[in-house]
Amino acid sequence: MEDFVFSLELDVRDYECDIQGVVNNSVYQNYLEHARHKYLQSINLDFADLTKKGINLMVTRAEIDYKFPLRSGDRFVVGVRTERISALRFGFVQNIYRLSDQKLIVKALVIGVSVNAKGRPELPEELAKAFGYK
Amino acid sequence: MEDFVFSLELDVRDYECDIQGVVNNSVYQNYLEHARHKYLQSINLDFADLTKKGINLMVTRAEIDYKFPLRSGDRFVVGVRTERISALRFGFVQNIYRLSDQKLIVKALVIGVSVNAKGRPELPEELAKAFGYK
Amino acid sequence: MEDFVFSLELDVRDYECDIQGVVNNSVYQNYLEHARHKYLQSINLDFADLTKKGINLMVTRAEIDYKFPLRSGDRFVVGVRTERISALRFGFVQNIYRLSDQKLIVKALVIGVSVNAKGRPELPEELAKAFGYK
Amino acid sequence: MEDFVFSLELDVRDYECDIQGVVNNSVYQNYLEHARHKYLQSINLDFADLTKKGINLMVTRAEIDYKFPLRSGDRFVVGVRTERISALRFGFVQNIYRLSDQKLIVKALVIGVSVNAKGRPELPEELAKAFGYK
Repeated sequence: MEDFVFSLELDVRDYECDIQGVVNNSVYQNYLEHARHKYLQSINLDFADLTKKGINLMVTRAEIDYKFPLRSGDRFVVGVRTERISALRFGFVQNIYRLSDQKLIVKALVIGVSVNAKGRPELPEELAKAFGYK
Repeated sequence: MEDFVFSLELDVRDYECDIQGVVNNSVYQNYLEHARHKYLQSINLDFADLTKKGINLMVTRAEIDYKFPLRSGDRFVVGVRTERISALRFGFVQNIYRLSDQKLIVKALVIGVSVNAKGRPELPEELAKAFGYK
Repeated sequence: MEDFVFSLELDVRDYECDIQGVVNNSVYQNYLEHARHKYLQSINLDFADLTKKGINLMVTRAEIDYKFPLRSGDRFVVGVRTERISALRFGFVQNIYRLSDQKLIVKALVIGVSVNAKGRPELPEELAKAFGYK
Repeated sequence: MEDFVFSLELDVRDYECDIQGVVNNSVYQNYLEHARHKYLQSINLDFADLTKKGINLMVTRAEIDYKFPLRSGDRFVVGVRTERISALRFGFVQNIYRLSDQKLIVKALVIGVSVNAKGRPELPEELAKAFGYK
């Protein structure tokens, strides 16, 4: 497993699996989002609080490689690492591994911006620090 | 908290919350199903395995009382208790409580039947035992 | 088909189906909610607008009978009828039928209340009219 | 709007919107999948049927650019175009536009492979034709 600053262990839930008997593709984005929000909490940024204050963290691009499917009963870990993309955009490198054998399931790069109530880019200080902007 | 034979602790995930800022009503059924399947696993019944063998556990009725909404950041517990409904139907009494203060969130009764590949009722032995049919 | 004041036709989407190859139980609540909100729109009540104004329509109880499962490729109709439950609570009688043969899929009674920003019951006038309170 | 071989019009459903009042990022993948499956049906390929026959169409990579969010009440169109990626991999170029003003909402490239019951690549003839392999 690569080096991550944060990781979250979860179980596949049967309702997340589709006709093919595997976790549906869209569900991995749920896993990735939940791990990002948990990571943000761990650096004292609460997603729902930020939203109430008018600061919207928004995903602008996601690149997701589906390497191997998760199935009912699998337990997995989502790793999170931050990557500075540009002055205004920040990236989350996120891999998902099956826990039983560390098999790589998903590799993802999720790029975001932070926008205030006026629609202008505004990066919360904790996020700026996490991404090494300060 | 009432007496349950099985309980499962989970976190609210932000994508499960809707415009009103609370967990969407349909999501509680996901929680309830996941807790039921985990309970079945705990008595050596795997839902996906049963499905592959042609035995389909099917919900025939759900009664759900929404007492108080869960919000982003909440952690909760789903309790499961079994109840014999009739010769062929079995019930799961399932309550959800917020963990911080044991507040009752949802009260549910989920009634199911077990049907084999021919569409005939067939109760796996472990389930029959769990419901006191044997 | 029974008599409804509003109906909505929809397609099953493959991601809504689970390992058993049928629409997952929780998804029917999504269908029912979407049909209710479309019905509210048809009487000039917009759910998202109401939420912004601080008026939250909340479901307090759902009774759902699962009669027959929908599968990939099925097209169906959700019927909506209103029913006065008490001075403060209103009910939506909602049935789902498969379109190809009018087979009854789901029978549901969804009971709700309308609460203002202070947490007090407040029924929007259009809703009061729809339920015959005025 | 660009040139697409298939397009599908849909409504935003309120349960698809999250705390920020916009359609949750993962939901766009649901829209994209549903439009792909409807496109496949339009060339006589049924996704659920293929799965039953042991042929699994699998997404191996998704690149999604989120240009502008959809909100409650929006109606939109998903356009689909095919693109040959390599001997074994095929791509779906998929854009989502808001219908009221043709605003570009999402740009996506979804890359897939087709695998038979033995785990070997096997492209159904209709798909081979659609992608100009035959």
